[in-house]
Amino acid sequence: MNNSYHHSLSASSQLTQLSVNRCFDGEQHYYSHQSTATKTAMTFSIYLPDEALAGRRCPAVLYLSGLTCNADNVTHKAHFQQKCSELGMIFIAPDTSPRSSESVDVPNDERYFVGQGASYYVDAAQAPWSEHFNMQSYIVDELYDLLRSEFPIDSIGVTGHSMGGHGALLLGFKFPSKFVSVSALSPVCAASESAWGEAAFTEYFGDDKAQWAQADAAKTIEKVGQQYTSILVDQGAADNFLADGQLQTNKLLDACEKAKQPLTLRYQAGHDHSYYFIQTFINDHIEHHWRMAQFG
Amino acid sequence: MNNSYHHSLSASSQLTQLSVNRCFDGEQHYYSHQSTATKTAMTFSIYLPDEALAGRRCPAVLYLSGLTCNADNVTHKAHFQQKCSELGMIFIAPDTSPRSSESVDVPNDERYFVGQGASYYVDAAQAPWSEHFNMQSYIVDELYDLLRSEFPIDSIGVTGHSMGGHGALLLGFKFPSKFVSVSALSPVCAASESAWGEAAFTEYFGDDKAQWAQADAAKTIEKVGQQYTSILVDQGAADNFLADGQLQTNKLLDACEKAKQPLTLRYQAGHDHSYYFIQTFINDHIEHHWRMAQFG
Repeated sequence: MNNSYHHSLSASSQLTQLSVNRCFDGEQHYYSHQSTATKTAMTFSIYLPDEALAGRRCPAVLYLSGLTCNADNVTHKAHFQQKCSELGMIFIAPDTSPRSSESVDVPNDERYFVGQGASYYVDAAQAPWSEHFNMQSYIVDELYDLLRSEFPIDSIGVTGHSMGGHGALLLGFKFPSKFVSVSALSPVCAASESAWGEAAFTEYFGDDKAQWAQADAAKTIEKVGQQYTSILVDQGAADNFLADGQLQTNKLLDACEKAKQPLTLRYQAGHDHSYYFIQTFINDHIEHHWRMAQFG
Repeated sequence: MNNSYHHSLSASSQLTQLSVNRCFDGEQHYYSHQSTATKTAMTFSIYLPDEALAGRRCPAVLYLSGLTCNADNVTHKAHFQQKCSELGMIFIAPDTSPRSSESVDVPNDERYFVGQGASYYVDAAQAPWSEHFNMQSYIVDELYDLLRSEFPIDSIGVTGHSMGGHGALLLGFKFPSKFVSVSALSPVCAASESAWGEAAFTEYFGDDKAQWAQADAAKTIEKVGQQYTSILVDQGAADNFLADGQLQTNKLLDACEKAKQPLTLRYQAGHDHSYYFIQTFINDHIEHHWRMAQFG
């Protein structure tokens, strides 16, 4: 690299570096590592602004992707790099679920909202899913600690899109000591009462409705009450999944009212569920997390 | 759509609209149409800022993609939409070559720098390529006229990446009455003297070296002399294709000196040939074309 910055992994690093690309005033990196939570190899992308490459601690935002996605979609299409470069933010994008490989056979399902590429960022409680589908533990314990030990991270906020928006709201309110800020783009707000989530939770939890409730973002917010100065949610007004009842944004609004959790909820005219929507508003989310990291 | 803008195709339109997505203050559209130049269906993407959707004439930039790409790569990964929305620019991304379909069998080659996904934006002179590989005529005549008749376009500039950077320089200097501005990202500057171009031109032109020279960007610039107030070229300094001799940026520099064509050539430290490089500098190129459209 033709610049004075670099990032060195710790001597005992469990990470394998897959790629490095210069992008704005920083670098887009990919890593893989062996996860104890999922018992598979896991891949994530991380954007490191030059401040971080020079070893200065930076605020970070963890982006949880939606159904069918992996780290590539947001890294290629959301265009968070420019704003993160300007502000000095680290941006981390994990995969959405464990994946089968030559050495590991992970359960799957022909329904895209249940198997590999789904996970709802929960720990599944019943076979065959409980062996590998432990994405809550992966995100909030294993990856969280790994990121803090390997990169110069000051604080971590959490955001996400669709199923990943559910994940951001759910994990942000279940583990408020871990995250300094929460936002979401077109989140699945009430997974336990949506067709996608009902199918997945039936597989992951069986009929134990107490576990369903603990894996529902709106119910969790209502139960634990206010945790953040404010949270930011953008929702496309022309989103077909909103019309289909998968997202149930009104239940998030109700839960935040009951929890006295300040919520900035913006319905964006004409916008759909796509990465064109995400790229239009991602900068506002990065700025939200940056402000929260600075000023709480 | 939940906004007051729309775009209507002419009553006799040859275009089929494939998709519409709201993105920033505008819409990303895809169209297909039957081409007489290539005798195939051709697809292109076009970003229309709200000014254009409301029918106001806007400056446009035509982006020619590199080897192996189609309209998707730049439309998904380059993130031109935000700057085009801010400035009121139209951005058009055609495919790189004709493609086989159920109804048409287009020649191909196992070498990615010769067959479908290549074309060098020239009209091939010999069989089997001359039947369909007529991308110069497609771009500067057919698509050019179609865009002007179907969209509220004020003026057109041309840019591109790699093989598409070659295309932008070549067509910009062969047809300066058609374009108000030229720029390029990591262009193939001397296709007739690069390994990629030699392989392709052998197929398209045989051993008629006069045709090779007419399809070489640096030779064309040197021959026709100064045509634009200035042209802008960005080149990653860590680009492996530069090191491999495929790009030959020095020959562009020499040609512009001999042609007295003002050239802003920027070697960008640490940057490679990827879309991470493109997204870092695309805004500067859009602003270059916007200024040229306003002020020549």
